[in-house]
Amino acid sequence: MLSFESDYTEGAHEAILEAFAATNREQLPGYGADRYTLSAIEKIRAACGCPDASVTLLTGGTQTNALVISALLKSYEGVVSADTGHVFCHEAGAIEYTGHKVLTVPGHNGKMEADELRALIEGFYADENHEHMVFPGMVYISYPTEYGTIYSKAELAKIYAVCRSYEIPLYIDGARLGYGLMSPEADLTLPELASLCDVFYIGGTKVGALCGEAVVFPRGNAPAHFVTTVKQHGALCAKGRLAGIQFDVLFTDDLYFRISRHAIEMAQRLKAVFEKKGYRFHLDSPTNQQFIVLENAKMKELGEHVRFSFWEPADETHTVVRFATSWATEPGAIDELERLL
Amino acid sequence: MLSFESDYTEGAHEAILEAFAATNREQLPGYGADRYTLSAIEKIRAACGCPDASVTLLTGGTQTNALVISALLKSYEGVVSADTGHVFCHEAGAIEYTGHKVLTVPGHNGKMEADELRALIEGFYADENHEHMVFPGMVYISYPTEYGTIYSKAELAKIYAVCRSYEIPLYIDGARLGYGLMSPEADLTLPELASLCDVFYIGGTKVGALCGEAVVFPRGNAPAHFVTTVKQHGALCAKGRLAGIQFDVLFTDDLYFRISRHAIEMAQRLKAVFEKKGYRFHLDSPTNQQFIVLENAKMKELGEHVRFSFWEPADETHTVVRFATSWATEPGAIDELERLL
Amino acid sequence: MLSFESDYTEGAHEAILEAFAATNREQLPGYGADRYTLSAIEKIRAACGCPDASVTLLTGGTQTNALVISALLKSYEGVVSADTGHVFCHEAGAIEYTGHKVLTVPGHNGKMEADELRALIEGFYADENHEHMVFPGMVYISYPTEYGTIYSKAELAKIYAVCRSYEIPLYIDGARLGYGLMSPEADLTLPELASLCDVFYIGGTKVGALCGEAVVFPRGNAPAHFVTTVKQHGALCAKGRLAGIQFDVLFTDDLYFRISRHAIEMAQRLKAVFEKKGYRFHLDSPTNQQFIVLENAKMKELGEHVRFSFWEPADETHTVVRFATSWATEPGAIDELERLL
Amino acid sequence: MLSFESDYTEGAHEAILEAFAATNREQLPGYGADRYTLSAIEKIRAACGCPDASVTLLTGGTQTNALVISALLKSYEGVVSADTGHVFCHEAGAIEYTGHKVLTVPGHNGKMEADELRALIEGFYADENHEHMVFPGMVYISYPTEYGTIYSKAELAKIYAVCRSYEIPLYIDGARLGYGLMSPEADLTLPELASLCDVFYIGGTKVGALCGEAVVFPRGNAPAHFVTTVKQHGALCAKGRLAGIQFDVLFTDDLYFRISRHAIEMAQRLKAVFEKKGYRFHLDSPTNQQFIVLENAKMKELGEHVRFSFWEPADETHTVVRFATSWATEPGAIDELERLL
Repeated sequence: MLSFESDYTEGAHEAILEAFAATNREQLPGYGADRYTLSAIEKIRAACGCPDASVTLLTGGTQTNALVISALLKSYEGVVSADTGHVFCHEAGAIEYTGHKVLTVPGHNGKMEADELRALIEGFYADENHEHMVFPGMVYISYPTEYGTIYSKAELAKIYAVCRSYEIPLYIDGARLGYGLMSPEADLTLPELASLCDVFYIGGTKVGALCGEAVVFPRGNAPAHFVTTVKQHGALCAKGRLAGIQFDVLFTDDLYFRISRHAIEMAQRLKAVFEKKGYRFHLDSPTNQQFIVLENAKMKELGEHVRFSFWEPADETHTVVRFATSWATEPGAIDELERLL
Repeated sequence: MLSFESDYTEGAHEAILEAFAATNREQLPGYGADRYTLSAIEKIRAACGCPDASVTLLTGGTQTNALVISALLKSYEGVVSADTGHVFCHEAGAIEYTGHKVLTVPGHNGKMEADELRALIEGFYADENHEHMVFPGMVYISYPTEYGTIYSKAELAKIYAVCRSYEIPLYIDGARLGYGLMSPEADLTLPELASLCDVFYIGGTKVGALCGEAVVFPRGNAPAHFVTTVKQHGALCAKGRLAGIQFDVLFTDDLYFRISRHAIEMAQRLKAVFEKKGYRFHLDSPTNQQFIVLENAKMKELGEHVRFSFWEPADETHTVVRFATSWATEPGAIDELERLL
Repeated sequence: MLSFESDYTEGAHEAILEAFAATNREQLPGYGADRYTLSAIEKIRAACGCPDASVTLLTGGTQTNALVISALLKSYEGVVSADTGHVFCHEAGAIEYTGHKVLTVPGHNGKMEADELRALIEGFYADENHEHMVFPGMVYISYPTEYGTIYSKAELAKIYAVCRSYEIPLYIDGARLGYGLMSPEADLTLPELASLCDVFYIGGTKVGALCGEAVVFPRGNAPAHFVTTVKQHGALCAKGRLAGIQFDVLFTDDLYFRISRHAIEMAQRLKAVFEKKGYRFHLDSPTNQQFIVLENAKMKELGEHVRFSFWEPADETHTVVRFATSWATEPGAIDELERLL
Repeated sequence: MLSFESDYTEGAHEAILEAFAATNREQLPGYGADRYTLSAIEKIRAACGCPDASVTLLTGGTQTNALVISALLKSYEGVVSADTGHVFCHEAGAIEYTGHKVLTVPGHNGKMEADELRALIEGFYADENHEHMVFPGMVYISYPTEYGTIYSKAELAKIYAVCRSYEIPLYIDGARLGYGLMSPEADLTLPELASLCDVFYIGGTKVGALCGEAVVFPRGNAPAHFVTTVKQHGALCAKGRLAGIQFDVLFTDDLYFRISRHAIEMAQRLKAVFEKKGYRFHLDSPTNQQFIVLENAKMKELGEHVRFSFWEPADETHTVVRFATSWATEPGAIDELERLL
């Protein structure tokens, strides 16, 4: 059955599988000391324009978020997120499990506003009882957000300015980073993004890899003994080659960006199809996730021929659903969808 | 360079890579709901003789140990391990990070003795101040152990009897399970092992997979909402197919056992070579890890032609080193080693 | 200077100090095994009408909240609180430090509504992705609330019915329990309250003790080995007599209730004074905390002669402040306040 | 019945009870901002010869240990203790509950040896896999130890030199600090002790207070926002006066030292009595805890007339028991004991 259920329904880009096969019997050291991991790190540094970056390859998004956030926070600090942020809603309490509260500011189509962030931090310090409360110790945003929206360079710079004025780090969850950067509405390059935060990750799982997220501390600013913390969280793979080879392939000849752009082109075609057919959008997403408002009977009927994700109820008789494209979406699938609508 | 450094130096068994390729464009649901994971679970249940087993696929050993142990312990309990156990020594405090103490009994060539385990638990309850101490809440052993040794069926049964008499679970770390079960000295089958513990894992990372460990609760006795705990620990892969396909292949036509047996045959040839050449063994290991005592100058000389692992100092002038075979060891490598010795 | 700053500005009821002196040289066993603690427990059981209650004496409110909540929750669960609840706002992340998220429903003058609680839990289970989210594992309310308001018996029964229908415990923070029960608007007795929850605590620190909170599991339903958990949290006092003597005195001849009633009488006189002088109340509190809206210049002027607490800004030119009475408030203080207003 | 069971069987020094009474109706700010706490802090600074010391008053020893240790360690670090240390054995896993491992060196009559500490740390850094292990991040010793023994100034200086060479803090648990410093064998003053560590606490609970431990960071080197961490651990008392008044009294006119010296004098008389009667000592303790080896039948017989603590079995027919004196021991009690022996 036709499926736009998510951007992780297929395996990996074929170039990755080929690299697995080609290198399979090479005897390599474990835990990320292999030459493919080292090569991947160099290529990621180059792509970010950050020759001194500390780069660590992990295997999943929740793992990465819990690890980075707990490694950066002091025990009396929490992380500030939009109230729609993945770390607040959909990670089974993984952040709290590490002992930290997630503080929230309102999400606006998934995005945090710098002014509201500043107001939260100012309000905290203005409260004479703030020593009885959780300190805002870092800021978490995602690019693109859970709603497919992206920050403009100016918006990001403004958020980062707030962080710097309070000397707290800004962390960008890039589970779908490629799909954000390759959006026609993006006015940011990867090096610019790297210069406007303290740590971010380049998502692989949703962008062509079987698994893998690359954590980047752009200015070599990883916490001391980060590898030990990775081990302690159960996130250190014995066969570091697993993520190493994948990122080495993804960052060879811009593959990561090329397949991301493909997903965006597919999303734009999909968007055009829905528009042409007169469907209503829940919000205007410039990336690979499109949120459509369906009348409930229509949703049920359509669901018999194509898979998509339930997102949230819109009103009594309508539902917001998500259609996602990815690096693996074939043009024919959009044509088929058009026939179905 | 010739290498016996560890059992995770190569990629994956080629049948796994082929299965990745063959299934790559199938659109599958995430988080372990795909048909390959479901098939792997059925095959693992069959291999264990446990039709009701709860089986969860994870990606690494430390992750698995921290997850299983913290999911089974109450907050006031600790896990009992041999003092040579992996969870006590080499996991960067991953168990303590979840809030639990590792209690120890002496390791005898890596193995725990049932009598000493019973003495520890009896001593705990006999102490009138035991409510001020950490309760022994479960027992951790590994099969094979960190020293390559294995428990006999009688030894395991005796340990399990202690656990049952105190109603605490027994957990078996099977990072190298295949290499234990396929040892000529093993008097245990997988179904027998499954019947003599409350939870164990079947290690994939060191036995033919790129990554992956299969946690088995043999009698459907997984903790409630275990998947949520997996997510909370950052151990839930979006692309469950990654581990699912691997275990599905490994448990098709006994591949897991066949490649394990191969590793053992290679280890026995390697052992014979060392014996013939008059080398001294640190202990008598019946599995894929062999521990040799080398004179330090010899160690240095040999190290220029073959890779092995430093284990521990033996005395002022000698060192214990480890040579490991694996599913990927080629017979020619043993021949070459013989020429070098 | 005249002070209505809080209900913990004085030491202890004099009967407590006398009991300290009278028993001082008695040699008593430690950790709560002394006869005063045992006597206090019996008296508390009697006062609650719960002959089988498990009663544990602790020293502070945050300590008690963190301990009870973490002892009752499974790792994948969080506690549901009103968004104005003390555990959500003012405990420096003590709950999250134990690894658990605080889930929120809207506070209405400090109170949770049963329907909104039910909607949150129903919504959780209706979400097909709920296994990726924090389970609502218990409910926290305070009586009286942080805003001095109290639940009616019907309201409490309705909340408890929701909890029972989902088999999750209801916990009542009674830091100021006496001030709630002795309010003329209270339609609940202590035994009734005990029958409408699974655990609560009787606050001593704010009601006549130097320190001390009595945790009551009304039906002997304390978690196994609770004393070990108390010790693990650093909450077990070597000299259990400290809390034991205090609660023994407070629950002799209804002292706890008599001094609570006194505080309420003082609060009602204070309220009448503010009303007479035409001041505006932020909300209608029937207990010992009164929230007054002051014009900012007036607030500054008044602050030179009497101490009260800043609560929150009301608007650009007004502020909500809190005046608290207590067991120790002298009638003359109200008279003096009247002259100042 | 005559009792030498522990040093916390009585209430508080009478001067403390008098101060409670004299100050009882003073309206004081909460959370340690009251004038008695501030005065106590000044007096403690003076007694320690540390005008810049950060001093925080807490209520119990396990609470203090867990708080100080977790506040000083990074997540990948553990605390090194003698294997007889209180934090390793008798705190119900309170340290591990905060996420940290307790690493051990052998205890010699309760004491750690500097050379063995250095060997452990050197061994750690020499291990090429140390990034997979818990970093030794601080050192814990007690003065006096759990066995009543004390470090000489030279021994302490040597341990501290090891700590400084690795830039890890040294923490001294002074639950019975006065009883150590007032021992005739002590060659250390309080200012000297303060100069030979990074943090220590002055135990009140066992030395004349109802409860209370004063944590001292001698050079103002408390972790940032330590009060928030105290709150987060549930260790911040609303009525800071409880500990404040007690320490203010204890550090007025050297009361703490005078009552400690009294306990030591009583211990020396008790020791002389046992020696005269031909009893055997388990070890030579110069402080208030004396460890006697009793023949089991004798132990039972004696136990009918005097209370003491079981310590540990000595052999098949003998047991080590502990007799403790304290600030509250009356000379007549020793006379009575002599008659019983």
